[in-house]
Amino acid sequence: MKLVRFSENGHLPRPGSLKGDRVVDLAATYEAYLDGRGVVRARELALTLFPSSTRAFLQAGAAATDALAAMDQAVVTGRLEWIVRPLASVRLLAPIHDPDKLICIGLNYKDHTEEGRFQIPPEPLIFAKFANAILNPGEPILRPKGCQQLDYEVELGVVMGRTAKDIPPEGALEYVFGYTIVHDVSARDFQFRTSQVMGGKISDTFAPIGPFIADRTEIPDPHALELKTWVNGTLLQHGNTKNLIFDVAALVSFLSLRLTLSPGDVIATGTPAGVGFTREPPVYLFPGDMVRMEITGLGVLENPVKDA
Amino acid sequence: MKLVRFSENGHLPRPGSLKGDRVVDLAATYEAYLDGRGVVRARELALTLFPSSTRAFLQAGAAATDALAAMDQAVVTGRLEWIVRPLASVRLLAPIHDPDKLICIGLNYKDHTEEGRFQIPPEPLIFAKFANAILNPGEPILRPKGCQQLDYEVELGVVMGRTAKDIPPEGALEYVFGYTIVHDVSARDFQFRTSQVMGGKISDTFAPIGPFIADRTEIPDPHALELKTWVNGTLLQHGNTKNLIFDVAALVSFLSLRLTLSPGDVIATGTPAGVGFTREPPVYLFPGDMVRMEITGLGVLENPVKDA
Repeated sequence: MKLVRFSENGHLPRPGSLKGDRVVDLAATYEAYLDGRGVVRARELALTLFPSSTRAFLQAGAAATDALAAMDQAVVTGRLEWIVRPLASVRLLAPIHDPDKLICIGLNYKDHTEEGRFQIPPEPLIFAKFANAILNPGEPILRPKGCQQLDYEVELGVVMGRTAKDIPPEGALEYVFGYTIVHDVSARDFQFRTSQVMGGKISDTFAPIGPFIADRTEIPDPHALELKTWVNGTLLQHGNTKNLIFDVAALVSFLSLRLTLSPGDVIATGTPAGVGFTREPPVYLFPGDMVRMEITGLGVLENPVKDA
Repeated sequence: MKLVRFSENGHLPRPGSLKGDRVVDLAATYEAYLDGRGVVRARELALTLFPSSTRAFLQAGAAATDALAAMDQAVVTGRLEWIVRPLASVRLLAPIHDPDKLICIGLNYKDHTEEGRFQIPPEPLIFAKFANAILNPGEPILRPKGCQQLDYEVELGVVMGRTAKDIPPEGALEYVFGYTIVHDVSARDFQFRTSQVMGGKISDTFAPIGPFIADRTEIPDPHALELKTWVNGTLLQHGNTKNLIFDVAALVSFLSLRLTLSPGDVIATGTPAGVGFTREPPVYLFPGDMVRMEITGLGVLENPVKDA
């Protein structure tokens, strides 16, 4: 399934499932499904299992999965039809806007550590963004006042599906719900002012996410995905997740030793080579630029740039 | 007002106001107040304005403040009595457990930068913890597996009351709801493995908070507060917020230039000298230890240590 969060005519955002050029309205379909079976509280139950918050949807875990499976089965046997909207008639939002944690991993591709003349870290290097940074597909990245060195970083985003604590790398992927594109927007002039990079990572709009979360069935191997970034049509990053220093299973396991991972937590796994600040001359983002990112199986995430 | 979050006999946590050795049950009192004025939806309104979530309470902003003022007035004129519990009969929880952001500032006291032989940063050094780290007063700090260098850091915590973006230092304190004690528990062996300190800062239970949030009327000057830490009765930290490198107003202003601060956001403002890892020989925390922290006007925060 390709999980989206969409809105239509300014209504409250709803969870959906992207099927080609149509979006299944999951809450409306489940309400119809329950209604057809005489359930009086159909609407309330549908909104509880398929709420506006993707974190809450993922926290419903097996209860939501069971409901999805029941709907699938009813559609297969002709007792139910998906309630759909044409993709062109809805707005796709960041597929998750309220994670408990947005954990970022730095220096996790060898070619990127080399271009920046960084040491390969002996264990995953952790920093964070907050929910204020999350940005919808298509909406403008805002260059903060005083920033002259705005930079792009395409990253594979991992969305947790289950609570994970002290788990080994073997089997760690089973705790993952799915994958999405995370754009780790970075203000290099702010980032390098202190020893801690977060000063350049946390501004509003600095984490475009989307356009959907592909669940694990869609991405059987997260370590064979191409990542690309174009700025104004020029390809500037072209990496592959096979080159991750700490791969997804290693990251989930490592983080689970340090803290409790929860459903909806997002891990941005680091960026490959080609970022702007290491180029000669450097390539920074300016108002009017358009950034396009693509990862195999995860669609395209595009955001223009403007001044805050 | 000293805002607490308390539970009683295992009931859902509720917001309270600490008055001496009694805790006002704010939701129950407001329900009684509305009920006395014939409001049919008294209970629902009381739970909406005085919810279990301190973030949600602070997001109610002026609506909650108005309700508090109305109750105060009714008590003064004898039309209402506070519904109270003896402090001894309730459990005080972390006064906020679900901030959008838990922003930590590093190296913000000169004596601490000196003891650690760090450079004074040219601007506030930012890292983060997540909500999984928040711990109730009295509950055990869990030393993670593999950690041998668990350390203490007492810090003034600033709790935001209003949305703040691009505000100058002058008047910045008006965006603050109040102050509390934050214990920035640190696993030094994890912290220094990479360039980014968060690896040693984010484990479950690494942010004891409390016992209450004193609002601004209780702490007219946040830059004249003594901070102390005792481990097993021995005084190991004794600083004063007058020595903050970037004071509260400067921090709120600076952060508001980088991102949007929201009601309930917590800023841990850094620790003064006396931490364990810079001592000779070093002083680390071990299972069975008791850590006691005190800040002028903000009460006492005590947590034992045990192995995870």
